[in-house]
Amino acid sequence: MFQAVGIGSKIAKASIAIFDSGMGGLTVLREVVNLMPEERVVYLGDTARAPYGSKSREAVLRYSIENAEFLVGHQIKLLIVACNTASAIALEHLQGLFPFPVVGVIEPAIERVLRETKRQRIGVLATRATVASNAYQQGICSRLPEAMVKAISCPLLAPIVEEGLVGHPVADLMIESYLGGMRDEQVDILLLGCTHYPLLKEKIAAFVGEDVVVIDSAESCATHVNKLLVELGMRELSDGIGMGAKFFVTDAPDHFREHASEYLGDGWGELDVELVSTKA
Amino acid sequence: MFQAVGIGSKIAKASIAIFDSGMGGLTVLREVVNLMPEERVVYLGDTARAPYGSKSREAVLRYSIENAEFLVGHQIKLLIVACNTASAIALEHLQGLFPFPVVGVIEPAIERVLRETKRQRIGVLATRATVASNAYQQGICSRLPEAMVKAISCPLLAPIVEEGLVGHPVADLMIESYLGGMRDEQVDILLLGCTHYPLLKEKIAAFVGEDVVVIDSAESCATHVNKLLVELGMRELSDGIGMGAKFFVTDAPDHFREHASEYLGDGWGELDVELVSTKA
Repeated sequence: MFQAVGIGSKIAKASIAIFDSGMGGLTVLREVVNLMPEERVVYLGDTARAPYGSKSREAVLRYSIENAEFLVGHQIKLLIVACNTASAIALEHLQGLFPFPVVGVIEPAIERVLRETKRQRIGVLATRATVASNAYQQGICSRLPEAMVKAISCPLLAPIVEEGLVGHPVADLMIESYLGGMRDEQVDILLLGCTHYPLLKEKIAAFVGEDVVVIDSAESCATHVNKLLVELGMRELSDGIGMGAKFFVTDAPDHFREHASEYLGDGWGELDVELVSTKA
Repeated sequence: MFQAVGIGSKIAKASIAIFDSGMGGLTVLREVVNLMPEERVVYLGDTARAPYGSKSREAVLRYSIENAEFLVGHQIKLLIVACNTASAIALEHLQGLFPFPVVGVIEPAIERVLRETKRQRIGVLATRATVASNAYQQGICSRLPEAMVKAISCPLLAPIVEEGLVGHPVADLMIESYLGGMRDEQVDILLLGCTHYPLLKEKIAAFVGEDVVVIDSAESCATHVNKLLVELGMRELSDGIGMGAKFFVTDAPDHFREHASEYLGDGWGELDVELVSTKA
């Protein structure tokens, strides 16, 4: 499946590739396009096997490799693993497999936490699988050994976003239920460690109050990618904006097409979504 | 993959096979074992590809055939498709493939509705995919053309059950949110069209009040299977009770082992759960 990504000027015209288990990674794509409108983006949602959070390490590793191998066939210059579960489990392996940069959503968020925390009291919200992977807690504590890190599993928040219930009282109830105890922890940073949570960012920020900085892993990932591409001289800086995005899914393209705007916001028009087969 | 199921006395000693996309089908297994404790049961949870509700018809059909083919290798006399999505999409196809009875969760529940309804005003609660499949609505209306059938998608109820939040206020909030409008419909029957919902049956019954008969598709499926096996002379009636259950999963056996009691109730001890590979 491997294909060379090209060199020199060809690299600059190659795409930023993004994969996720489903639609959550679209929040990362949105930030990438906002920050780097000149870049071409190719996205793969592995909707046939979503969600990854309840799957084993072996399964997530295998799915991640297959996703990356598929995207390598589309002239890419950088790969974003826009899924916390896959970032926690498969990132290092993928970095060893390919010659181009492979960026996850965890490390850029941790780096931003390290830059912004003042009192070293950090809250992390994530799915059950991401919390259990210990990736955020370990990543923060290994560099700030005296930090207090409190991770909270919020398993119902992703389904609430997926079902379009961001404006329903259930979103407020579950934010209160998951975050009620967080108030006593006196955190100064709250990290949203799931690509679905940016859609709940305003509500979460309102709940924890303005003294808490809410860091969104989609946004910090895009910021990191922009900086990295500039440093590597691989940033597309042509005048033509809106180089476009191409979307692939492994199942149910119509559902993806209909619901993508909930993650991407308006102004995208009809998306170019193509069904591709995996080994599933 | 196909294997003959044996004839005569061998049939009586063969197993009842059950598959589901994950753990929800365990509510069907529980009812089967309660009603037919002398039967041997073999269960496959396709946890590597769960949930099916968000997958395409093609994917669900293919997964269902693979699951059935796997179970056929375990000396079975009857197959229960304990998943509403797979029942709606794959049942007829599976019935054409195999010589033994293949029973879904939809038809037995509809038959019970037809027997019990007095005012022919019927509510159906199910996942988004099951409601969209129209299987319950069509199945009822084709035999009771003047019936009023009101189906409601309750996409958050299955995650609430899966996350062990049956006793949390979010269960009450979402039951009220989904069923609030149902009160005006004056239904006399409320059908629970998802294998996760039996765990919420008490709360749902309390919400709709005692004038509404709540029918649970897991229970009606087991009742139908019992009757069918007796009619076919294939019911195991040996004295030895607790012939045992064997469980297979396509991913994450530990998670299955730890959480099965939420669906099965207590008294099962350590389950015999084996990881098997699918083509995924």
